[in-house]
Formats: sequence, C-alpha cells, structure tokens
Amino acid sequence: MCGIIGVYNHPEASNLAYLGLYAMQHRGQESAGIISTDGNNFFSHKSMGLVADIFPLEKIESLRGSMALGHVRYSTTGASLLNNSQPFMINYAHGTLVIAHNGNLVNGEEIKRDLVIKGSIFQSSMDTEVIMHLIAGYQEPDLVESIAAALKRVSGAYSLVFMNQDRLIAARDPRGIRPLVLGKMGDTYIVASESCVFDLLEAEFVREIEPGEILVISGDGLQSYHPFPVHKPANCIFEHIYFARPDSVLFGDTVYDVRKKLGRLLAREHPIEADMVVPVPDSGIPAAIGYAQELNIPWELALIRNHYVGRTFIEPSQSIRHFGVKIKPNAIRSMFAGKRVVVVDDSIVRGTTARKIIKMIRAAGAKEIHVRISSPPTDFPCYYGIDTPTRTELIASSHSIDDIRRYITADTLGYIDSKALTEAVNCQHSFCDACFTGNYPITFPGIEGAQPRQPTLF
Amino acid sequence: MCGIIGVYNHPEASNLAYLGLYAMQHRGQESAGIISTDGNNFFSHKSMGLVADIFPLEKIESLRGSMALGHVRYSTTGASLLNNSQPFMINYAHGTLVIAHNGNLVNGEEIKRDLVIKGSIFQSSMDTEVIMHLIAGYQEPDLVESIAAALKRVSGAYSLVFMNQDRLIAARDPRGIRPLVLGKMGDTYIVASESCVFDLLEAEFVREIEPGEILVISGDGLQSYHPFPVHKPANCIFEHIYFARPDSVLFGDTVYDVRKKLGRLLAREHPIEADMVVPVPDSGIPAAIGYAQELNIPWELALIRNHYVGRTFIEPSQSIRHFGVKIKPNAIRSMFAGKRVVVVDDSIVRGTTARKIIKMIRAAGAKEIHVRISSPPTDFPCYYGIDTPTRTELIASSHSIDDIRRYITADTLGYIDSKALTEAVNCQHSFCDACFTGNYPITFPGIEGAQPRQPTLF
Amino acid sequence: MCGIIGVYNHPEASNLAYLGLYAMQHRGQESAGIISTDGNNFFSHKSMGLVADIFPLEKIESLRGSMALGHVRYSTTGASLLNNSQPFMINYAHGTLVIAHNGNLVNGEEIKRDLVIKGSIFQSSMDTEVIMHLIAGYQEPDLVESIAAALKRVSGAYSLVFMNQDRLIAARDPRGIRPLVLGKMGDTYIVASESCVFDLLEAEFVREIEPGEILVISGDGLQSYHPFPVHKPANCIFEHIYFARPDSVLFGDTVYDVRKKLGRLLAREHPIEADMVVPVPDSGIPAAIGYAQELNIPWELALIRNHYVGRTFIEPSQSIRHFGVKIKPNAIRSMFAGKRVVVVDDSIVRGTTARKIIKMIRAAGAKEIHVRISSPPTDFPCYYGIDTPTRTELIASSHSIDDIRRYITADTLGYIDSKALTEAVNCQHSFCDACFTGNYPITFPGIEGAQPRQPTLF
Amino acid sequence: MCGIIGVYNHPEASNLAYLGLYAMQHRGQESAGIISTDGNNFFSHKSMGLVADIFPLEKIESLRGSMALGHVRYSTTGASLLNNSQPFMINYAHGTLVIAHNGNLVNGEEIKRDLVIKGSIFQSSMDTEVIMHLIAGYQEPDLVESIAAALKRVSGAYSLVFMNQDRLIAARDPRGIRPLVLGKMGDTYIVASESCVFDLLEAEFVREIEPGEILVISGDGLQSYHPFPVHKPANCIFEHIYFARPDSVLFGDTVYDVRKKLGRLLAREHPIEADMVVPVPDSGIPAAIGYAQELNIPWELALIRNHYVGRTFIEPSQSIRHFGVKIKPNAIRSMFAGKRVVVVDDSIVRGTTARKIIKMIRAAGAKEIHVRISSPPTDFPCYYGIDTPTRTELIASSHSIDDIRRYITADTLGYIDSKALTEAVNCQHSFCDACFTGNYPITFPGIEGAQPRQPTLF
Repeated sequence: MCGIIGVYNHPEASNLAYLGLYAMQHRGQESAGIISTDGNNFFSHKSMGLVADIFPLEKIESLRGSMALGHVRYSTTGASLLNNSQPFMINYAHGTLVIAHNGNLVNGEEIKRDLVIKGSIFQSSMDTEVIMHLIAGYQEPDLVESIAAALKRVSGAYSLVFMNQDRLIAARDPRGIRPLVLGKMGDTYIVASESCVFDLLEAEFVREIEPGEILVISGDGLQSYHPFPVHKPANCIFEHIYFARPDSVLFGDTVYDVRKKLGRLLAREHPIEADMVVPVPDSGIPAAIGYAQELNIPWELALIRNHYVGRTFIEPSQSIRHFGVKIKPNAIRSMFAGKRVVVVDDSIVRGTTARKIIKMIRAAGAKEIHVRISSPPTDFPCYYGIDTPTRTELIASSHSIDDIRRYITADTLGYIDSKALTEAVNCQHSFCDACFTGNYPITFPGIEGAQPRQPTLF
Repeated sequence: MCGIIGVYNHPEASNLAYLGLYAMQHRGQESAGIISTDGNNFFSHKSMGLVADIFPLEKIESLRGSMALGHVRYSTTGASLLNNSQPFMINYAHGTLVIAHNGNLVNGEEIKRDLVIKGSIFQSSMDTEVIMHLIAGYQEPDLVESIAAALKRVSGAYSLVFMNQDRLIAARDPRGIRPLVLGKMGDTYIVASESCVFDLLEAEFVREIEPGEILVISGDGLQSYHPFPVHKPANCIFEHIYFARPDSVLFGDTVYDVRKKLGRLLAREHPIEADMVVPVPDSGIPAAIGYAQELNIPWELALIRNHYVGRTFIEPSQSIRHFGVKIKPNAIRSMFAGKRVVVVDDSIVRGTTARKIIKMIRAAGAKEIHVRISSPPTDFPCYYGIDTPTRTELIASSHSIDDIRRYITADTLGYIDSKALTEAVNCQHSFCDACFTGNYPITFPGIEGAQPRQPTLF
Repeated sequence: MCGIIGVYNHPEASNLAYLGLYAMQHRGQESAGIISTDGNNFFSHKSMGLVADIFPLEKIESLRGSMALGHVRYSTTGASLLNNSQPFMINYAHGTLVIAHNGNLVNGEEIKRDLVIKGSIFQSSMDTEVIMHLIAGYQEPDLVESIAAALKRVSGAYSLVFMNQDRLIAARDPRGIRPLVLGKMGDTYIVASESCVFDLLEAEFVREIEPGEILVISGDGLQSYHPFPVHKPANCIFEHIYFARPDSVLFGDTVYDVRKKLGRLLAREHPIEADMVVPVPDSGIPAAIGYAQELNIPWELALIRNHYVGRTFIEPSQSIRHFGVKIKPNAIRSMFAGKRVVVVDDSIVRGTTARKIIKMIRAAGAKEIHVRISSPPTDFPCYYGIDTPTRTELIASSHSIDDIRRYITADTLGYIDSKALTEAVNCQHSFCDACFTGNYPITFPGIEGAQPRQPTLF
Repeated sequence: MCGIIGVYNHPEASNLAYLGLYAMQHRGQESAGIISTDGNNFFSHKSMGLVADIFPLEKIESLRGSMALGHVRYSTTGASLLNNSQPFMINYAHGTLVIAHNGNLVNGEEIKRDLVIKGSIFQSSMDTEVIMHLIAGYQEPDLVESIAAALKRVSGAYSLVFMNQDRLIAARDPRGIRPLVLGKMGDTYIVASESCVFDLLEAEFVREIEPGEILVISGDGLQSYHPFPVHKPANCIFEHIYFARPDSVLFGDTVYDVRKKLGRLLAREHPIEADMVVPVPDSGIPAAIGYAQELNIPWELALIRNHYVGRTFIEPSQSIRHFGVKIKPNAIRSMFAGKRVVVVDDSIVRGTTARKIIKMIRAAGAKEIHVRISSPPTDFPCYYGIDTPTRTELIASSHSIDDIRRYITADTLGYIDSKALTEAVNCQHSFCDACFTGNYPITFPGIEGAQPRQPTLF
C-alpha cells in the first residue's frame, strides 16, 4: 500500500510532488519522502509521518531541481522504519539512480537469496532493493535495457518510477496489477499512482501507463517500450472496492461509479425491506448510495466519523480501555430508534469492527440490522501489495456466512457474488480477484502455505 | 469557537478530558489544553496543535488527579498565541482557580477598561481573564457567590467550567447562547460543550446545563443555583446550521435532524428540476440529504474532500499559487458530465469558495448548477463567539442574492427564509438568529459600528 | 539566577538580544525568552531550553523592531514552567509594558498577600508579577513615577529592564545587590547583567547602572533618576566567587582578577607543601591559579570536564545507577599517581560532589589531598536571588570544618576567612556576604525560620 | 573523525554504549547512533545531533539486549546526511552484520569502482559500505575469515567493531593509525576509541587492540588473530596533538602528558621573555602549561570560551555579520593591558581564527604577542580520517612562517620542530606525522593531486 509520483520538467518539481503525495495520502500514512535533482546533485527528505506535517516550506525549497520523485508508504508490517521509506537512491556503475515503488514481488525473497549467496548486501527489507541490485547487475550501458532485463527476472506487482540525472522512467508489471497513470501540464509530465493527483494540480489526464510498458520521459519526449511477454492483465479489483480515492479514474472507470454499481448489484442480489440505508464511512458511502437508489430506500449518513485522528493517538489505559471503540464512527441515536436499517460496508476483514458498530447501532434502538457487503467474502490474502492479514485472521476463510452473521450480531448478512464484480467494472479490462477466489494470476513457490514476507528490523 | 470539558471524580480524569477534546476537535483546531488536580496540586499542559498530536501518553499520565478541565480553541484572530490558550489558571485570595470558557462577552472590553483604570493588569486578550478579575474582586468567601456576582456584571455569551481543589462548577449565560451539557458515567460527572463527548466515553447524557444556571459538583453531589434575572433564551442557531457535530444533541434536537429538516424546507421553498443533489462536504451533507429526499432527486457525494490537511500545510509558491484551491473538494468528473446539479451548502460567507467550486463543477461538464443554501443570507457579524468576518467582508451584507448568484456563477441561487428556521428546530427553545436578522438579543454600546474586538499581541 | 538584556535602537535588536543571552547562558539554562517591539506591535518567543537551541533563525527574524528585551532563567525550584519564563508582558491602563527581572524580593509574598486580598489575581509565582501589579496600581500618568512608586514598596534584590513602545528603562535596587551594566555601540544602547555581553557584541562598556538608579533611554537620550533613599551598597560577593563569567567586569573589578586574588589570599592563609595545584573545573580555575602562583607550586588541569551535557541527559537506570558521577570531572590518572595534591574549588555546598571527586583522585593514586576553598563556609541561604539550598542542606551550617573534611575524605581542608574577602574586591564597593556571615543587609519578617519561597504550579 | 564503542555481555548494553558515546562526543558532534541485539532481533536508533539530546530514556530502553555498538560522527563534508550515520547494518548470506567504523580508506574509491562495475550498489558515501560489500563477497562460512579477507583488500586507517547475533569483533589496521582500546567490567567487555570511556563507566583498561589484530569476543572468551602482514605501526600523532581527550591513554601515553611535554619542548626551541602564557582554550591548555612551567612564566586562562554552543547557532545576519567572531574565546581585558603575552595553540589551519584572536588580544592592550604552536606547520592533508581541508586551504602549505606571522599579526611565531614530536611520545610506538612531513605511511594512487573524496548526496 503505497503511492508514488514522478515529476519531469517543472521549476517547482518537488512542490508538485508534495501536492501529489498530499492527494494520495490515503495510500500510505506512515512515511513519506521526496528526492529531487537539478541534473547534477540529488536532494532528499524522508520522514515518518503525514505529508502535510513533515514537509515544512524550507524543506520543499531545499529539494531543488526540475525533476522529483515522491512516495507515501503504509508499512505492511510492524517493522516500519525509516530504512524502509522511499524513494530509494543508489550509486551504481552508471551513476545515481532513484526509484519509487508500489507493489509487491512474489519472488523477491527468492532472488534476494540468490543475490545474497553471490555476496550482495541488503540494507532494507524492501523488494525495491532487490530490483536495484538486479538493475546494477546487468552491465548494459543503456538504463532502459538494464531495467527491462531486471524486471524480466521478477514476478509480482509493481508500478515503478525511476529517475536519474536526466530521465524519468515509468514501468508497470505485465499484468498491470497496481495502477499508474500519466498526466501533463504544459511541458511538464507527471506520473502518479492515481489520477486524483492531476485534478489537484489541474493537470491533464493523458492515459494509463500500460501493463508491461516502460515509458521513458526525457529531453527527446516520450518513448514507449514493451519488452515483456504479453500477459492477460490482472488489475487489482480491491483498488476499486476499497483502496483508491473515489474521485480517481482507474482501469478505465471512475472509482465512485464502480462502487455505486456494486451497491446496485448488491441490492439486486440481496434486497431487503428497510427504513434506511446507512454506510460505514468513508469507504462504504458510494456502495450504500447505489444500494439505496436501487431499492429506493432513504439513504442517511447516520454514522459519523471523526477525521481528526493524529499520528500519536493514545490508547486509553487500563480502566477505560474499552474506549478502544474510539476510532469507529458514532451512531446518531435519533436516526436509529425503532428503525429497520441496512448497513453497507466495502468488506469484512476480521469482523471485530463490524461487530462493534452493529452493537452500537442496536444500542441506539435499531429494530433490525441488515448488513450488506459490496465485495465477496475475503477468503485469501493478497501477495501483490495490499496489506491483508494472514489467512487465519480473515474471518471468511474459516467461517460460513451465517457464522459471520452471528458473530457480528446482524439480523441478515449479504455479500455480493464474485461473478457480479465483473459486471461493475470496465469490460475491456480484466481483473485480479484472488483475494475472493484464490485464483492468483501469478504462481509462486508454495503459495498455499506462503505468508507475506515478514521483514526483520530493516 | 471553542470546546470545553470538565471531569469530576474519575481516576483517569485527564484521559477522559483528552478523549472528550478529541471528540470536540471540530470546535477548535488551533490549541488545546488540560489542567488537572489531585486535590492538592494542579498539573497543566497546553500547546498549539491538534489534540491527538500534542498529548503523548506521558503527558496525559503526568496530568494526575481525579478532576480535570480541558479546552480546544480556534483563534478568532491572527494573534493566536499560547498566551491565549486555555484552561486559564490563577492564584487569588481563596487559592487556585481554573476556568475553561466558550463564548464571547459584549461588555468585556468595557469592564476591562474599568479594571485597568483601577490598576489591574492583563496578560492575555481573552474575556476569560476579565471574568477571573471580577471573581477575585468580590471578597465573598463563597466561590459560588463570587462567581454569581462576577457573572452579573458581564453580558454576552458564555458557557464556563470552573475547577478548584475540590469542586467543579459549570455556568451558562442567562440566554444559553452557547451549549453546555451534563453527562454521567458511574460516579463520574462530565460537563461538555457537546453530547458527542458522552457517546465516545459511553457516558449517559443527563441534561443541558440550563440557561442562567450555576451547577456545583462536589462531594455533596449536585447543587443548582439560578442567581440571574430570567431572560428569554437565545440559543445560537448557527451551532445547528454549521458549527456543532451532526451526532450531537443540542438545544433539544439532534443536529443532523435539524440540518435535514432545513434541507427539506429549502426544497419546498426553492424546488428545482435536476438530475442530482450534491452536498459541499462535510457540513452540507445532511441538508443535501433532506433536499434530495423531499424532491426525490438522486443524492450523490460527487465532491470529494481530502481529510489529511496538516497543521503546516504549505501554500505552493509563486508560479503554482493558483493551486490555492487545494483545500476545496474535488469534483468527480464522470458524475457531473451533462448533468443538472443542485449544490447544497450550509452558508456562503465571502463567496470565494463557492465560486471556485462552481467553476470546477462547470469544468467537469455540468449543464446546470443550482445552488441552495440551508441558512438565510449571513448579513450580520456574530458578537457571541462565532468567528464571522466583519460586515464588509460578508458578501450578503452588501449584495443582492442575484448579485451573489452572478458572482459565484450559479444558474440559480436559493437561500432558506429566516422564518423557516424556526420550523426546523425544537419549538420549546428560542434562538438567536442575529447573524441573519440583526436582531441581537443582547444590546451593547455602539453595536452598529462595532467590530469584534481586535486582540493585540496577547 | 537569571540574566537580562535590553537593546535600544538597533535594526536587529532581537538578534543582539539573542547574542547577549547566549553570552549569559551561564546565568540560567532552563528557559529563555525575547520580546521585541517595532513601536506598534510586540513580538514574543519564550521556550524551555538553551538559547542556541530555541531560537532558530526564523524565530529571531519574526521578532521585529528596534527594541528588545531578553531573559535567561534558572529555575529556583522544581516547578520550572513556561508560565514563569520571562520577559513578562502586560496590558494595563497606559498600554503595554514588558519587564525582565533578575533578583528576588524579600517582601514579595507579603505584598502579594495584600494585593490578593484586595482582589488581584496571579498567574505565575514570580516576584516580577508583584512589581507589575504595583506599577499598574499607581495611577501616575508618568511611567517612571509609577515605577519609582512601585519599587519603593518592595524590598530585596532587583535588576530590572522595562520596555514599552518607545522607551527602555533600567532600574537597580538601592543596594545594587545584582549587577546591571550599560553599554553603547554607535547609537544603540544595551543594558545587560554582565559586561561579557558587550565584548561579544563589540560594544563599549559605559558604566554600571548605579544602585538605586532608574535610567530612562528614549528618543531624548539618557535620563537618570535616583528616587530612593540612599543605602549602603551591598553588591553580591557570590557573583564574584562563583556566578558571573570570569571575563566580566563587575562591581568595579574583573571577576577573574578577584578570583585569582582570592586564591592568593587563600594560599597565604592555608599554605601547604604539595606537588601540584588542581582546580575543580570550571569555576575553581582562577583561584587555583592564584593559589599556585602564590606558593610557586605547579598548576595542572588534571581534572577534565565534559562540556557536552545536554538538556536531557539521562540518569542510567538501576544496575548502573552509580554512574551518577558522570557529571563530575574525570581525573587524569598519570598526573595524580604518588602526588601531593591541592584541590581548589570555589565552594562546598552539600559536600557530596567534593567527596566523589576526592575519592576519585585518591583512587588515581594521589598520596595527599589538600582541599582549599576560595570562599568561607556557606552557612546561610541567600534570599536575594542565588539558588542556595535550605540551611539544613548546607553542610557548613551544621558541621565543623573538621567534620566536613572527614566527610569529604580530604587530608586537610582550608576555607578562606570571610574578612579576607574584602581584600580581594574593589575597596570602593561594599558587599553582601550574608551567605557566609548571616549579616543580611535587608531585614525581613521571620528571617531566621524563613525559607525561600516555594512556588506552586505557577 | 568518529568515535566507536562496542559492549559485550551487559544487561544494559545500550545504556553503556550511550554513556561511552557521551564521553567521546568530542570525536563527532554531528550524528550518533546505537544498534543493539538480544541475540535474535536488532534494535536501532540513529539521528543527527548530540548524544545527550537524541537519546531520550525511552529510546535507550527500546534498544534491548546485552550487546550494542555505538558511533558518533563528524561529517567530513557538507553532505552530512542521516544516510551516512552509523552503526551500519546489513543482511547478507550469513545473517545480519553490524559495523561501526573510525578511519578512512585510501583505496576505498578504487574498490568501490571495481565493485560497482561488477554490479554492486551503494547507498552511502561511506568507506564502511565498501568493507561490508567485501565481507559479503567472500563466501567463507566463518565471519572472521571473511573479515580478514576483506580487510586484506583495503588500505588505509580503520578501527572497526563488528557485531552479529552472538559475537563482537574488533579490528584495527596493520599500522594502528586510529586508536582502539579494550576494557572490562566484571564479565562485560567494552571496546572503544578512547580510554576516557572506561573512566566514566568505572571499567578497567585492559590493553590496546594491537595494530593488525582481529579480536573476537564471544561465549568462548577472547580470541586474537593477526592475519595481516606486519607493518611498522603509524599511530596518528594528531590524536595526541589535538583530537583525543586529554584524560585518555593513547598509544602508550596519557594525552595530557604528551601535550605538556610538547609545550616544554616548544619552550626550549622557541623561548621568549614574557609576562604571561595564555592558551587558546580548550585544546591549547596542556601545551601552554608545559611552556609556562619550562620558562617559569605565569600561566593565565585569560581567554574565556563559551561552552553553550548549540546545534543551531545562528550566524547574525547582514549588518551584524562581523560578530562571526562569536565562537572565538573572549579576552579578559584587565589581564592583557600592557602585557607581553605568549599565546599557545595546538595548530594553525587556515590562520583566520588565530588572526581574529590576536587582533582581539591586541585591542585588549597587549604590548607584545608571541604565538607558539605545539605542532609543526600543517603542510599536508590527512587521508586517514582527520578532517583537514585541502592543501590549498592550509596556510602553511604555501606560506613561509614569517608570512603566516604577518598574516596573523603576531610579533613572533614559533612552531615546534617535527623531530621534537618523537621526543614527546612513547618511544616504543612509531607514529604517522604525514600532515607535517608528507611522509604518508600508506601509498596510494595519485597522492599528490589527490583530494579527499568528495561525497555526493549520500
């Protein structure tokens, strides 16, 4: 779970990168970084924290030059250290190279093992470092060829932006699992994880970086390469369901539209008579609108979320520990009293949050509570970059829908069918739905028993 | 614009105060403070910033004792200094006294002048300091009598919580302009600006502190005094329209309900044929729901707000300064293309934000844009604690509705009628609507020309 | 223990104040503050910490105007809070007044009690606030008259600098207990606690502010007033012995010279045959030089002090707690082996540090250790602004010199005689030596049992 | 310029490392770091700043385990980034390896070039990373063999401490250029750059790590290896002259003793009739004592240094820029008036500071100023880890002694002869004096034109 941005040819490149990271803060709240270059030197600032907190004006001004890469990161493990923050910069045979990476390799550990046996050293637990080792290992004088050669060795999900002193290079895995889009504003090019960046910058959306494409942006304009064998694309469906911002255009669709359509389809599959439809904010909102419109039931924002969560929010200690509910939304009592309620959310992971919310709604006087989920049961972990827990923690992997219903104390529970997903999205794209179906588009050794890699200190 | 909380008799009083301030962060994002007492010593921490950022665990633990006062503040001027942060603590003839204050006095400057002529010194620009001087000036051995005598001298809006070593005392002005509510959780009493605090703490809502009431919470239980001449209440209608959290119960109504009713009334007054109703998030959401339900037009959250604004968000410099739109919500293009849109917001102050949003929606392809405002034109400044600009900055004070419509580039513009306000709120309460009507419930010298007091450095 | 500075008529007044505070950092390491004025507005920054850490460039630049007051403070109690940091600023009948104060009043609590009974409120535990109340209480239109009237009411030690929008006013108590000097650099006047400030700023030392003088610096030049009854001066001898910087000129003498003379006198009173003289760094250095020169014994800096002590130096926990010696200087073993050593320090307060140092020197192989102290036994606490412990903690107040010698494990111990002090200092000045003799120049109620005032939270 | 420490087998290993770094703060004030291990996991904290500021208690407590490495660093270039801070930790074929390094390789760039051509990537500009690559490149299962093999490839100065999960390994280059000593306290072993660490920790000094020794400390006790060809030692003479703490025992001598002897020898070579000898504090103090004792001239600490320099000390801007002298010591005027003065310092680098000090002493009224330097003219840059400027900046490399004398405005100027150096130090050790003689003990390609490596961003 990361967001990346590259800016080419703008006098305030690092400022644009900063604004772009701000727009993509939802993709990673743990650390952020920007590295810029003026064609000679490189300037770097990375820190733990929110974009708007860690980049005071003087920091941005010190990141000089007309090219910049930026990165926001949500740690996929407890070991969330500055060592693992990006962009990542190296010196190698052909100078300096900077990279920002969104995704996860499935053979990263395997290649790392090979490299390490041959004497390579690693200073982080990031797959990104594996890619850099591979690039440096190819003695090709041409950077694009080295990148292509390196990426041919790796399997998995990656959207990448590279920068050296004079070029910006974007690359996307052959299946296009993670998003990556190209924008333009005057003579400036911008590559970013999501198109909402372009809206903030008032830049023009040009197109997606294509699956398997390596796009070079330099003084010679744009050059596109497709060095990989062609694969059927496998766009991450979970970006649409939960992860991306609703105002982004992704894989040929506006995210908000897809979520609303999922809500409509969910209503057709699991209709119910009710007095109102209430979303779990914020991600459940569009699906709840679709559900309510389809069945013509009033839609109400009767669960209120506090948006002022800080980086250091303190768990109340001991005697008041049961306030742990603090981050859940608050139920407006007057809205729920005596009502039959449909609660719509995008997914159920462990079930504990849903259980708390339903108990709160029940305590607020709801007569019936019907839970509707705009995705199928999440049975399988993601190995391509979404931070899902291990299988044993996924409630749906070991419990029937009725068991889950009982656990969360709902009157009824309906998930959308996995086949319906394809109806909601652009039919010209094909998607990865492995988290629901277990149909992993990229095979890898021992997938059944495999756990997401557990980084150590690095 | 402030939020206050007092906690009586809880082993983790300052932790409860912290959580309560977190729930009321919307009432003031500039500074926050907590002072606690263990019956002997007082412990204090105040700082600029968000509650969740400025109270690390060790700070909360250092605020020992079973009583605590807390305060969040939004500066009403540029001079937002730590000197003016609260709670405010003094030593005086009868020991130590702590106060947290929400509101604004209309004769504060006048009394200050009198006090200063008699030789008093002031270290802040807060009205609160005036109240403390008055209390100390009455030689009454009994604190409640001193407080009553002091409050008889002041006019204006005030909700107050006092704390000394053994008592918590809540007081509210005779017109009850600002809210103040009482909650209970076991043997613990809590006084707070808004009831959403009780929901987070899972405390029981007991009742409002009544207008003109002084409520003493001590080892002897609760004692209520009504020392002031009775006035017709004048609850601030703007708390309902904009300021309070939608899940709070205020002046006999849930805020969300009032906002929805305002939307319905607005729809009856200014109906229009349209394809969808879109709120300006977040405050316009409930009124937009009411508007849409009344006219049976689809409601869409097609403007997306970024919630990650930090304390130090940097204005892009120079060449990219026009990104100043960054804080406005982003329009989902696919939703607006070719549509007739009703945009609902709670108010128009200067008109600049509305103009930006409408231009963005127009650029997204909307065919017609109809703006509906769930309050009457804001013609008059508030002198009772809401941070409105001076009259000359209020666009409605010097422009006709049609002028405003043209300025913001809307196709039509409708404000709710000020008489309709009374239909939306609890008929057993009476309200102050001076910001719309100029009917100021509390007279004061030179109100016509009066400007809100301009604090200097303090 | 504080240092103060006032700068009049310099375009970078706050920058000069900053440099001056840096030069006087030894007078207080706990908090520092600067308030400046451009003749209209006042600008303030105060914080806990060292001058060089808490004033980044942008802070200094934000303290605009051509007048500035600065203050460094060493808390005299554990309650070292920002509330008590200075300069102190008030609004009163005649506008804004800023003060910086070095010293301690003996009747501060008494006047405070009177003021409080009449209804005054106090927000700090500083004597300074008492002075401000008194000034504001006199209705004199002329500030100098108000200041004179106020200071006539107080007894004790005070060196003060006041600033309003157009004048800088320096005042010193009639006995001149604490130092205060006047410097000049072009058209700029500077008032400071110590002359070392002028050396750093390359300003010219003009003269002392005289005991009992009120000096007004304004557009009309300098005007000097002597409104108080004349008293025999009582300059603090301890400034010479320990507190001031050796390169400052104080009470008519260079501090270094006085300390060296004390060392010579000490040598005459308590000579000994030894191989070397070693100072306890840094304050014992000049006296040790005098001692060594008088007896023609080699002088060695054989105890090495670590100057990198930070604000947050951590006490090693538990099993290694005995490292508490860490702040004491380290003995160079090769220097001490088999030697007869004279260790010279300026004073012995509790005796614990001396004991540690002597044991360390003994462990380093010294054959004899003779301790010589360049001041008489410290029998009495200071009530005039030096942070001495209470009488019971002063080892000399209840133990004979031989008891002390045994406790610190020295072979011999010699203190200088109190009468010799007068030989070492400028004979045209008269001094307060109450800490050695109990001859307090200013009487006050209950001095025998009196303890230095114990501030509470404020 | 760095200080390193390793702690083996202590329950509070990181606390001891912290105290040791504090004692060695003079060896590097820019950044500090500690990495510890509990035998399974590794715990790390590194930051820019002083040891006492950047390790709050909770940080030290979080560095768990009974082994720890620590490092303080003074950047040798403007590019002083966190990337370059140490200790340095890698994952490689045999697990995790941590290193702390003091010194500088002469063939580091050359080896780096080779490694890079073969595909290695570098993330810092530290030689240390080169060593880690070499170690990882040897496939030896035994770490000691890999370390030995790696170190055989490098030339230059290095004192190293390595740590993996169960062993601490110290290594020193065959010439023993940088110091490294072994201490013991109970069952705990400590390796550190300087013996002053042992004094603070009350540990026992055992011995130097020998030139060319690799010492393994593990559960099996101590094992010593000497895998390198034997070279004539070349201990850095500049450690004695300037860099080390005077209370450390280094290369068989106490530093203070050596400096005093240098002062005596200097007096014999360049005697002068004078009224007093004054050191430039702090490093000139011992030599000045020796000089004064030899000639029986009074010694005075008449230049006073301010020890409160913070990390962020601000250069006064513009009109008061000439205060740049602020960091130089202040002259006590009364001491210099009419005097013939000998000023003793350890070295003259660019001459600018000496010039400022002499002008200040002259302005204080000195009649004659004789400068004596306790080292020979610094003609040649150091390539072995001391941060000297390039040759062109060294005033002595291109000016005669008399030119220098005129530039610094001294009446006479005397440097010690380079041959005399050997008289001052332990005759059983041999030293590197290349900075004075150009006799570089380790040859390397293109030494004449060579500049110290200029790190780029890393």
